[in-house]
Amino acid sequence: MTSLSTRLTRMLDLRHPVVSAPMAFAGGGALAAAVSRAGGLGLIGGGYGDASWLEEQFEAAAGARVGVGFITWSLRKSPSMLTDVLRHRPAAVMLSFGDPRPFVDEIRAAGARIICQCQDMGHVMDAVDVGADVVVAQGAEAGGHGALRGTLGFVPEVADHLAAQAPDTLLLAAGGIADGRGLAAALMLGADGVLVGTRLWASQEALVAEGHHRAILETDGDGTLRTTVADIARQIAWPRGFTARIRRNAFTERWHGHEDELARNVSVEGPRYRQAFTAGDPENTGVWFGEAAGLIGAIEPAGEIVERMASEAATRLAQFGSAASTRC
Amino acid sequence: MTSLSTRLTRMLDLRHPVVSAPMAFAGGGALAAAVSRAGGLGLIGGGYGDASWLEEQFEAAAGARVGVGFITWSLRKSPSMLTDVLRHRPAAVMLSFGDPRPFVDEIRAAGARIICQCQDMGHVMDAVDVGADVVVAQGAEAGGHGALRGTLGFVPEVADHLAAQAPDTLLLAAGGIADGRGLAAALMLGADGVLVGTRLWASQEALVAEGHHRAILETDGDGTLRTTVADIARQIAWPRGFTARIRRNAFTERWHGHEDELARNVSVEGPRYRQAFTAGDPENTGVWFGEAAGLIGAIEPAGEIVERMASEAATRLAQFGSAASTRC
Repeated sequence: MTSLSTRLTRMLDLRHPVVSAPMAFAGGGALAAAVSRAGGLGLIGGGYGDASWLEEQFEAAAGARVGVGFITWSLRKSPSMLTDVLRHRPAAVMLSFGDPRPFVDEIRAAGARIICQCQDMGHVMDAVDVGADVVVAQGAEAGGHGALRGTLGFVPEVADHLAAQAPDTLLLAAGGIADGRGLAAALMLGADGVLVGTRLWASQEALVAEGHHRAILETDGDGTLRTTVADIARQIAWPRGFTARIRRNAFTERWHGHEDELARNVSVEGPRYRQAFTAGDPENTGVWFGEAAGLIGAIEPAGEIVERMASEAATRLAQFGSAASTRC
Repeated sequence: MTSLSTRLTRMLDLRHPVVSAPMAFAGGGALAAAVSRAGGLGLIGGGYGDASWLEEQFEAAAGARVGVGFITWSLRKSPSMLTDVLRHRPAAVMLSFGDPRPFVDEIRAAGARIICQCQDMGHVMDAVDVGADVVVAQGAEAGGHGALRGTLGFVPEVADHLAAQAPDTLLLAAGGIADGRGLAAALMLGADGVLVGTRLWASQEALVAEGHHRAILETDGDGTLRTTVADIARQIAWPRGFTARIRRNAFTERWHGHEDELARNVSVEGPRYRQAFTAGDPENTGVWFGEAAGLIGAIEPAGEIVERMASEAATRLAQFGSAASTRC
């Protein structure tokens, strides 16, 4: 029998040090609840300000102990969403992509843990300043929005910074982690657990069109890129410095590198993008997954994914640990 | 007492599963010899075709058992360099950035191990085709030339591919690995060892100007970027798809994003680049290190770096392993 107890499992009373990424659109209440029931912590994706959708997703979580994540710069436009959500007593609120300061007091007052997702050392310093309970070091491998640092070098650098400046702040690794090997590696790098997006996007509970799920099974880890074309087509004004990792397909082939032309044609291309997205067309819209695509061979129940990840990691650590140490 | 025995240490008769990256200009014979004497395998950087420099570096290795690495597309222009080098009976020859086919028979006939460095799954398939003894999965975090995949997701994907297609081929992880945490993580991901560049660039034996060594100590992991401007300034025609990670400085600030203008002004900017490089100016030339800069606090003897990396990794694996397994 193996187990993985970390500062994260103790802080949040989890069985496994695994948190689901609050993926906009894909990360609804059913996914979050499945992750939490399996012993991790599920986060509902707060997305871009659709309060009624978010309310439905908390209902779909059906009383499971979950959290929620927001796109911070977007939340500033509809801050009442945070107030609404806190009525559901989320275990944690994650803030990504923007200044967390306007929101931390309200989250803390509601008794939820504050998770700040960071893409560079400047973000980490901001997270420490606001007294984040948990910092996520998100690498460029991750699907969806992110930035430039690679997970493997970023995580230990953040670990060193936290050890020196905020030793009680926990650290999660995100980006490229899809199985027990990735979880075990994250723990070796100094993380207390992992935030998992792409692998749980490819779960039965994720709100993902069937055609997009089929696409990830046919795509290896080379088959994605970081780009701004999905945001241009959707007319979502992301702050500079953030790009989205999506599948390489006909849409990215046509427009990546021709961003100005896409912006000029957005009255045609925008509706085309949205229609293809809704239809689950894998070619003519953004298909939102990361480099971990190369590690995924099936769409499975989220709970099985979380449990296997934890047990594989524990087994692997135990094997290597006994090989590395003197025999008892 | 801890130890790390892997397929790599057994294949190459090493004490530690650590290989030094054959860094052009910086990775000379003294560095390679120091790494090998410490129990890893040092690789001399074959660079861009300077046969007499390479001869000097084998002399500087003073009989230590070392290997050598070439920039494959460049070696095609001066293939006699390989023949010359094989007279020194290198333990291994690493080929990176180009088709390995023209060289593998000669290397194999000389009794050296063939290491193929790969940046995407297509490269891995080529390496398997030629029967590489060792594949290096190099992530985008790495300093110097490379490509787009992140180390953390790429390594396990390559491990799965090798397990299915070439189970006797060994795997090294490269990119972002600078201490025992990175080595332990690489082993968790399925690697048999690591290839280390930046951390050994920051060693006393590396052929690096003092001003550049000072610069890495002042730079965190956010302070680099992938760009083509150093190659444009040097008029080295790298194949499409490869960029170089170097320090963000006045030179990259001025020219990154203005590549065509730099190319037009290369008669002035080229000599300026070279002069600043020779002078160890950290601002007006390429300063060649990767994201692992954020993990480096001192310029140290290479042997100490290798030994500490291995002992830290073994200790970390033993600690987590015993925590993850049932107590004896």
